[in-house]
Amino acid sequence: MKWARGAVAGSDAMTGVIEDGMFHPRAGLGSDIAAGDPVPVSDVTLLPPVVPGKFIGLWNNFKAAAEKGGHEHPTHPLWFFKADTSLSGPGAEVELPDSAGRVIFEGELGIVIGQTCKTVSPEEAQQAIFGYTCINDMTSLDILNADPSFPQWTRSKSFDGFGVVGPVIETDLEWQDVTVTVLVNGRERQSYPASDMILPPAHIVSLLSQDMTLNPGDLIACGTSLGARPVKAGMEVEVVIEGIGGLSVMLVAPSEA
Amino acid sequence: MKWARGAVAGSDAMTGVIEDGMFHPRAGLGSDIAAGDPVPVSDVTLLPPVVPGKFIGLWNNFKAAAEKGGHEHPTHPLWFFKADTSLSGPGAEVELPDSAGRVIFEGELGIVIGQTCKTVSPEEAQQAIFGYTCINDMTSLDILNADPSFPQWTRSKSFDGFGVVGPVIETDLEWQDVTVTVLVNGRERQSYPASDMILPPAHIVSLLSQDMTLNPGDLIACGTSLGARPVKAGMEVEVVIEGIGGLSVMLVAPSEA
Repeated sequence: MKWARGAVAGSDAMTGVIEDGMFHPRAGLGSDIAAGDPVPVSDVTLLPPVVPGKFIGLWNNFKAAAEKGGHEHPTHPLWFFKADTSLSGPGAEVELPDSAGRVIFEGELGIVIGQTCKTVSPEEAQQAIFGYTCINDMTSLDILNADPSFPQWTRSKSFDGFGVVGPVIETDLEWQDVTVTVLVNGRERQSYPASDMILPPAHIVSLLSQDMTLNPGDLIACGTSLGARPVKAGMEVEVVIEGIGGLSVMLVAPSEA
Repeated sequence: MKWARGAVAGSDAMTGVIEDGMFHPRAGLGSDIAAGDPVPVSDVTLLPPVVPGKFIGLWNNFKAAAEKGGHEHPTHPLWFFKADTSLSGPGAEVELPDSAGRVIFEGELGIVIGQTCKTVSPEEAQQAIFGYTCINDMTSLDILNADPSFPQWTRSKSFDGFGVVGPVIETDLEWQDVTVTVLVNGRERQSYPASDMILPPAHIVSLLSQDMTLNPGDLIACGTSLGARPVKAGMEVEVVIEGIGGLSVMLVAPSEA
């Protein structure tokens, strides 16, 4: 089942299910309760499919990237937060501020939490996963390494719009079977199997729930693999995961935004 | 003026102003609109005075601590986020999970944002500051340095309850004049002048607003100075800033919480 958030011209954002070309409004994420008449999807401007309380990102969670970088496999997720204001959705224009310097895309699989969980087992964690989405975890390379005394993971990933999410949350995805692909101006630039993950989703959620309480709507970007690379204003960047869809943004210079 | 959040037994949380021993409910933070009859403060259980969209913390922002640690003075805030679920308020019991290992208190001055700001000057930033509060930015030392490849600033500071805030937001504080004091079981363990800050509040807000949009209610912990030290279950830790008040929490073992 494909869940989305969207708005029809002049209306508030609504959450719902997309089926047969129609957007069926629901009372909330995962709710069975209808919250309005179905609308053709073509009339709906899609937004990020969830507004997370926590927007978590992982580093060093793919074997191929760890091998290339010479990093040991972590036994606990190495993670950071992205700002609430970094959230952007399908079709957004994302400004590349001058202060961000060199910016890269990072195509990633995203986990959306469906139930509150604290100190849960991997089996319980599996049940707490609502579904999966596409994420472009945009990152300023220059900010990340600007200060040798303090790697700026959070700042480098928190510029407005740098957390691209969508287009939908798919509840029935077999994550082991999908490939995460990124197209830049239509040309494939990143492509890796999700099954190359070091810590798989149920373990990520279980281990994060040892650190803090996770709540419905919390979002976890599972980390990226090889192929992330610098991008510039004027480029269209699309993250594609079969079964979820394509998540495209247009990068723009500061003055255009 | 002292702003607070609190609840009377059985009621929802309300925001209001404390004056002459009474809690005057208001329609929102900074609002002039009354939202109910005044209640004696003694009948109100105080909560964190704000629920921030962003809970930002700074590292290396005091001259004395930078000198002792051999750190250069940053020209841009070195910052991280604390989890939404780390938020706790005056009088809370905060669990010290076994997985957190050694935990320290950090007494800090907190800035509460009152207006949306993006790329603002220090003068504009000064106008966007709603007021100041006390923060105990609790931190797991063992987690922070557990992995040499990735300093875990966010994880070490995001355990449930590790972001203690309150008891009120004072809108009329002369921050340069205050001392940040921490008492552990009533004994003074940290005491430093806020005026020793490297980047002062208006500059912090201005510079953070270059990184991302700040919104009303966003909270910034200005960093700590010398004297932060390990604490254990059974200890009462109180951050005191004259003009704001005392912010006390009881630390408890996991099984007690």
